[in-house]
Amino acid sequence: MDLPDPLTKAQALHVRAGSRTPVQRIIPEETPVAMVYDGTTHAVMMATPADIREFALGFSLTEGIVEHPGQIASCDVIAHDRGVEARIWLAEDRAEALAARRRTLAGPVGCGLCGIDSLDQAVRPLPDLSGAGPVLDAAQIAAATDSLRDWQPLHDQSRAVHAAGFLMPGRGVVLAREDVGRHNALDKLIGAMALAGIDTGQGAFVLTSRVSVEMVQKCALAGGAVLIAVSAPTAHALRLAEGAGVTLAAFARGEGFDLFTHPYRLTDEVSDVA
Amino acid sequence: MDLPDPLTKAQALHVRAGSRTPVQRIIPEETPVAMVYDGTTHAVMMATPADIREFALGFSLTEGIVEHPGQIASCDVIAHDRGVEARIWLAEDRAEALAARRRTLAGPVGCGLCGIDSLDQAVRPLPDLSGAGPVLDAAQIAAATDSLRDWQPLHDQSRAVHAAGFLMPGRGVVLAREDVGRHNALDKLIGAMALAGIDTGQGAFVLTSRVSVEMVQKCALAGGAVLIAVSAPTAHALRLAEGAGVTLAAFARGEGFDLFTHPYRLTDEVSDVA
Repeated sequence: MDLPDPLTKAQALHVRAGSRTPVQRIIPEETPVAMVYDGTTHAVMMATPADIREFALGFSLTEGIVEHPGQIASCDVIAHDRGVEARIWLAEDRAEALAARRRTLAGPVGCGLCGIDSLDQAVRPLPDLSGAGPVLDAAQIAAATDSLRDWQPLHDQSRAVHAAGFLMPGRGVVLAREDVGRHNALDKLIGAMALAGIDTGQGAFVLTSRVSVEMVQKCALAGGAVLIAVSAPTAHALRLAEGAGVTLAAFARGEGFDLFTHPYRLTDEVSDVA
Repeated sequence: MDLPDPLTKAQALHVRAGSRTPVQRIIPEETPVAMVYDGTTHAVMMATPADIREFALGFSLTEGIVEHPGQIASCDVIAHDRGVEARIWLAEDRAEALAARRRTLAGPVGCGLCGIDSLDQAVRPLPDLSGAGPVLDAAQIAAATDSLRDWQPLHDQSRAVHAAGFLMPGRGVVLAREDVGRHNALDKLIGAMALAGIDTGQGAFVLTSRVSVEMVQKCALAGGAVLIAVSAPTAHALRLAEGAGVTLAAFARGEGFDLFTHPYRLTDEVSDVA
């Protein structure tokens, strides 16, 4: 069975004052994708049915299930009627680590205190990336989201798909992935970068979306020290970026941007390539 | 301890060609909110820290944990350092039903087949709302998202918060709620409507966002037969709306809209009130 197409055609009635016109629209597909480790489902995400192996790898990395691609023994992608299964088998030591982690999380218990426990677990400890990472000039950061536009074939057709890209100093965006979910787009990109051997510490993640807590977490846990986004950050995301040593530029839309954290990665020197 | 403010001020450096200006931006807060039933955490969502009791009720309704507000015995909202806890105690029969549901879900098991099981669980059975629900004219649907703009104080200040509203024929938007998460905004609205005694079958849900599977599920499970959104639907969301008898109008932006499903709720008659 094949994966569904990432985009599909839908018939609609376009209605405006005094007229009703049958139209055909191109809209994104949205499919449940189950991440199944060693025969046990870890999570199901609603996602664009494409780049599933990269998604599985990126998700495994940003969720801390593996530390590098070599810890995944195999990954099969199986399309079912109701969705897509990424069937992942872990190397022995990681399988044991995940099993141990599951035992501590095992099942809901009525201790009356676990509201606090689960709040603590919601925001994960992040690495300190201060001092690491690239230096970028203002023109590169300002041009980042425009540069990402060249990597959005699904969005070009549907106007409804997020993208995450990776920008390298002097080279522009070197890789990007799209998904109906912004978290998934970032996980797919991180997986694709790991497979391509691109060092996340050498450039900046570029997002078409707002910057929520989860986006900063995934960026930092993947080793990314710079995050550039089209839209606003949340206050909580800013605090995490500040604490993790991540430079966060938001409202980046061609002409300029707002730099919220760790401005020392912005240089005054002008690069050769915008 | 008080809840954090829904919006907060952040300092940034606004950078554009040749200039760097310190600016102050108003950005949304984002807080982990734990839904704790009878002493056990069911889920933690990242959300705007406001309207938490309405959120707890709406979430309980759209997740099928209760069928009506009377099945919640009590709900206390407790602010912690790390987030907010909605401590919900269920009426006895619902507590037993939830405990039974938890036992069937209890803990990950290594059956090797649960990828398929969990894919089935990802998309829930929906009621059939065909024939129920309101009739709206084209002008009302086209004006819905503009009408919602009057109910978005957080978005007016931050440009970064979603809203969900409820539109009634001849009355415009009668209630709305905002949240950094679009699903949360809809849950908060559904909770607020239940508390206010507003029948979800008598109008249309209006969303500032795209229409994903989860938005159609929440709408239909709350008894809403019409969904109007600013942005695109996914193909999967369309299939669910088609199957559940939900009229879905998307790309609704003042001048017109695309009607994708169940057009019989669109009338040619013109209402008195736009």
